[in-house]
Amino acid sequence: MKKSHIDLSLYLVTEESIDIVNLTKIISESIAGGVSAVQLREKNNSSLSFYRKAAALKQVLNELSTPLIINDRVDIALAIGADGIHIGQDDLPLSVIKQMVPEEMIIGVSVSNLKEALEAERDGAGYIGVGSVFPTKTKQDATPMAIRELEEICRSVSIPAVAIGGINADNIASLTDKGLAGAAVVSAIMNAKNPREASTSLLERIKVFT
Amino acid sequence: MKKSHIDLSLYLVTEESIDIVNLTKIISESIAGGVSAVQLREKNNSSLSFYRKAAALKQVLNELSTPLIINDRVDIALAIGADGIHIGQDDLPLSVIKQMVPEEMIIGVSVSNLKEALEAERDGAGYIGVGSVFPTKTKQDATPMAIRELEEICRSVSIPAVAIGGINADNIASLTDKGLAGAAVVSAIMNAKNPREASTSLLERIKVFT
Repeated sequence: MKKSHIDLSLYLVTEESIDIVNLTKIISESIAGGVSAVQLREKNNSSLSFYRKAAALKQVLNELSTPLIINDRVDIALAIGADGIHIGQDDLPLSVIKQMVPEEMIIGVSVSNLKEALEAERDGAGYIGVGSVFPTKTKQDATPMAIRELEEICRSVSIPAVAIGGINADNIASLTDKGLAGAAVVSAIMNAKNPREASTSLLERIKVFT
Repeated sequence: MKKSHIDLSLYLVTEESIDIVNLTKIISESIAGGVSAVQLREKNNSSLSFYRKAAALKQVLNELSTPLIINDRVDIALAIGADGIHIGQDDLPLSVIKQMVPEEMIIGVSVSNLKEALEAERDGAGYIGVGSVFPTKTKQDATPMAIRELEEICRSVSIPAVAIGGINADNIASLTDKGLAGAAVVSAIMNAKNPREASTSLLERIKVFT
């Protein structure tokens, strides 16, 4: 397993438009259950709402010594002093972002094939999010990749790779021994009746990744 | 008329999602007709598309010695070295943006009443956009303000004020002698058959502002 300075083993990506009170509750419980990093993703919110939620969440996560990574919006990441920024293939180019953020701010890139993975590594990504590995309701247009492609990507890059897309307690074991540094999940924790137990259950299975 | 270091007398705000070729054509013609500043506004585009359009437009506007102001997205303004950033009441707070951008980057703020105008000035806005002054299709939820309120705002702040909202060649003359530094228009130029003539026609009437 390739390591980054941020522990990405169980990486929670938030669901859209949950109010900060509920979000804080879910995230705090999931961290108690083993979540090691959090990504705030708000695609349909105003800049002000996104900023306020990010600033509030950063305070909570500082108390819990857990890094906060902001999806897409470099300005919001800079404004709240986030630990990282996560971009997709339709966001600002990685090479441009590298010029704008402090060196210690990790930049993660979503990739769906080997070419994108190699480009991300070449341009200085701190980690890659690889997927979707399974069918997912969060991104319904995403076609799941073959597990051998996931393995090839992990073998081909020297930065940490995190699997994402439809991962849950039932399928996570199939990601064992693929060279992953962790798994990123949305619904499996965000929609769980008990986010703490759901996280612990996922984490137990993730331990076999190494 | 209060002046800023950027000439805001005829301030073109772009319409959503016009491809860069057509956008460049309309903007170049409108500048030939008298447009003095351009704001790029893309609320529904991906970060990558917005960035690419902004970067291309910045090159065009550099050639034409016309400033480019980016709506909302501070990261994109920083990435392309824009001349300014324009924010609304739902964007990142002005006080936060002031910490993130170079001093020479002008920050404009949309205000719809005296309270917002005074707050914008207090927090360091370089100019305010006041409106909507007339009914507009661009922002259909905007209620036009009374002209006496516009006058009161212009009297109450010492930064330049630009009127916005439904301004066209037929109604612009009614903005005379209200203390405005200029007028911002969208449709009256973007949807004109001849953007150059439309701009000249507006500019002639703006000259009576002072």
